[in-house]
Amino acid sequence: MPDRDRARFINSLSGFKSANLIATQNADGNSNVAIFSSVVHLGASPALVGFVMRPDNNDRHTLDNIINTSEYTINQVSADFYQQAHQTSARYTKHQSEFEATGLSTHFIDPIKAPFVKESVLKYAVELKQIIPIPLNNTQFIIGEIKLVVCAHDAIQEDGYIDIEQLHTTSISGLDSYHTSQRLSRLSYAKPKKNSRKLSVNGEPL
Amino acid sequence: MPDRDRARFINSLSGFKSANLIATQNADGNSNVAIFSSVVHLGASPALVGFVMRPDNNDRHTLDNIINTSEYTINQVSADFYQQAHQTSARYTKHQSEFEATGLSTHFIDPIKAPFVKESVLKYAVELKQIIPIPLNNTQFIIGEIKLVVCAHDAIQEDGYIDIEQLHTTSISGLDSYHTSQRLSRLSYAKPKKNSRKLSVNGEPL
Repeated sequence: MPDRDRARFINSLSGFKSANLIATQNADGNSNVAIFSSVVHLGASPALVGFVMRPDNNDRHTLDNIINTSEYTINQVSADFYQQAHQTSARYTKHQSEFEATGLSTHFIDPIKAPFVKESVLKYAVELKQIIPIPLNNTQFIIGEIKLVVCAHDAIQEDGYIDIEQLHTTSISGLDSYHTSQRLSRLSYAKPKKNSRKLSVNGEPL
Repeated sequence: MPDRDRARFINSLSGFKSANLIATQNADGNSNVAIFSSVVHLGASPALVGFVMRPDNNDRHTLDNIINTSEYTINQVSADFYQQAHQTSARYTKHQSEFEATGLSTHFIDPIKAPFVKESVLKYAVELKQIIPIPLNNTQFIIGEIKLVVCAHDAIQEDGYIDIEQLHTTSISGLDSYHTSQRLSRLSYAKPKKNSRKLSVNGEPL
């Protein structure tokens, strides 16, 4: 397979991927934002989140800023700005802000120095904890701790679950396909001797 | 927040997660299968995929088998067996096969020793490459190389993209919510000076 086709094929194998914008700011106050499909939950206590950084010049500004400031924000991409979010993957120069270039807006929340993406309705500030090199393919796994969450209150259910479908959060398949979701069901905690039950979005038995 | 509510809340923050069954076999020929929502694409060349193993007795059989045999399969969960897939997360004993307990079926493909999940329509064999400990929360990041892919041929587009929406692949939000998808669009490769265009599922401009 040609390289690009192979990339599309292999990128399809892991299943649906999260769609998130990671935003940073350098010491001079210049903002940077880039889309990532590799953000992954690592643990709830402490609240840790990871993502994969490729050995690619384009993402390099994001990593430089994270290393220099230890701070970044992760912003879920919803359906009403997925095209602008995708556009952040273009190879802009270090001196171009992807915010300006794509028409996305910064939003600052004291005392976090990194910008949030104003258009995102579920977003949080993260503090860098560890960078793990993966020599197998020269990528790095970036781990941070979640510090401050901004989310529409009515999306948060009584049992803690956030209805990200109601927020029109998108997912990605392959390199470039964006999707909204349609809930099949929530399911009760699985136990060996009985089948789990379907639950409504607020966690009540159906 | 109570621990379980906190877990649901923090698990919702990363966005939609992939839904995959990881299947293994031990030296005695006993099969094991467990659902994971942390499978993440790491790179196309070599074709690498990672997932997070929690310090949890339940997943331990999967990890033991991977360490002992260096072989596992990853099987996308589709809508028609998501309840059985969820049920694999119950705490079965080492001597119970989750295949038997949940009604899923094994499928063996020579020369791969690990079982595939028969019900899955997109699945692949993986060879263990590296286990990276993450001391921050006592998890491990398991990295393997994709060796053999089984997929319905008509889901594979000419440009390599696999239409996993057509395959009814599910995604997970939070700890327990399962979703199918609805495509917004594929988008063309982003370039700095022009906005990306919407593409059809086969990669042609719309």
